[in-house]
Amino acid sequence: MTRYRATIAYDGTGYHGFQRQAPEHEPTIQGEIERALTQIGQSGVTVLGSGRTDAGVHASGQVIAFSAEWRHSRQDLQRALNATLPADIAVLDLDEAACDFHPRYDAVSREYVYTIYNAPVRHPLYRLNALHIADPLDVKAMDAAAAGLVGEHDFAAFGLPTAGDVTVRRMLKAECRADLPSPKGDLRLVRLELEANGFLYRMVRSIVGTLLLVGRGEMTLDQFRAVMESRDRSRAGAPVPPQGLCLTCVNY
Amino acid sequence: MTRYRATIAYDGTGYHGFQRQAPEHEPTIQGEIERALTQIGQSGVTVLGSGRTDAGVHASGQVIAFSAEWRHSRQDLQRALNATLPADIAVLDLDEAACDFHPRYDAVSREYVYTIYNAPVRHPLYRLNALHIADPLDVKAMDAAAAGLVGEHDFAAFGLPTAGDVTVRRMLKAECRADLPSPKGDLRLVRLELEANGFLYRMVRSIVGTLLLVGRGEMTLDQFRAVMESRDRSRAGAPVPPQGLCLTCVNY
Repeated sequence: MTRYRATIAYDGTGYHGFQRQAPEHEPTIQGEIERALTQIGQSGVTVLGSGRTDAGVHASGQVIAFSAEWRHSRQDLQRALNATLPADIAVLDLDEAACDFHPRYDAVSREYVYTIYNAPVRHPLYRLNALHIADPLDVKAMDAAAAGLVGEHDFAAFGLPTAGDVTVRRMLKAECRADLPSPKGDLRLVRLELEANGFLYRMVRSIVGTLLLVGRGEMTLDQFRAVMESRDRSRAGAPVPPQGLCLTCVNY
Repeated sequence: MTRYRATIAYDGTGYHGFQRQAPEHEPTIQGEIERALTQIGQSGVTVLGSGRTDAGVHASGQVIAFSAEWRHSRQDLQRALNATLPADIAVLDLDEAACDFHPRYDAVSREYVYTIYNAPVRHPLYRLNALHIADPLDVKAMDAAAAGLVGEHDFAAFGLPTAGDVTVRRMLKAECRADLPSPKGDLRLVRLELEANGFLYRMVRSIVGTLLLVGRGEMTLDQFRAVMESRDRSRAGAPVPPQGLCLTCVNY
């Protein structure tokens, strides 16, 4: 048996998240990869991910691991998987790994990007990978609020732990910036980049929902900080929808 | 009756092009907009476009015109249309226009962008809006070849006229550049931007197909120029697929 580690990308639009569900009627990323492995002669293989992504969330840098008996090269394994997987999932790279490599427990940090399409009218070409917000957003205020997330904090106000009860995480990066301003200045993409040693359930989406209150002028920087320090989920903004979220990188 | 002019955007993935087909069973952009107008009480209205886009081609700046009896504000008309149109079509702006405004005949130039995802492995998040090319591309050579298209030329080698038999067009801009190089340098988006006073049928896609021969080192700059000057379609590269193409702007 050889342990393999792979970076995968997927369009989460058509999937009920990364993790295979108990009732297997809902398509999942894990389920599709295990099915592709079966189709290339590797049945009964369990695929581990660096973390679950929710239904509709995308990835350009999810890391997975699995053990398999494969007699050909790793390049052939990657090609066989990409030829078998549906068009909305791909293996970007694949390497042999230490036999005890675990993509979740060995991860040092994870990076997510949440994209907002900020313009008066919804845009068809951004509907599957960005949240449309028509109200003008104060991106500088959002960036200043996000900066307060950096460091070790109890993030209980923004989510529930996926395992255990510890809600303290170390945020390594939290930046909000506007991209691609149109010549007219009436449309733009606002991107929030977060890197942390771990994320609570729905944490990125709750943070974005709360930052949107700041961006709309409905919450001050002090109030944003107070929400974080309160550890009270009822004080945070509502979690934003999944289609703007992308897991971009896992660091080891 | 008031004449309206609107800029529309659409994800062409699910449509058989802009123009309403004679047998109306295939969904088209024009058909969807006319249906939305009917639903808001404007039945029998014909929508004109600045030009046809083929099946699967996108637009972020298609211009349309129609005449209607609308008793409310133009803002209300835009809102009503966007509330009625499917998520993959939107009216970005809408204004009153001169009663004889024609989006096709009055256009001075049109701008298209063709996007190539250039990386060893296909990427799920670019599959609907870019062509995947695994071979490394010499983008500088492609840009140099594209520069030779600028000016007034007979483009018969790259397409058929949509009406009449004149195949001379004036190319105002033709630039090819690589965007978003990854830190590893192994993936990038290559964008070809073209602006002309008019385009022949499949002209952009035939030009891109021929530029790819240059980018792969299979055709020299002199040979590319000779293809254009030959007026012989059999010497051009095969037209590339539609999903990388987007009509970005129409100028008046």
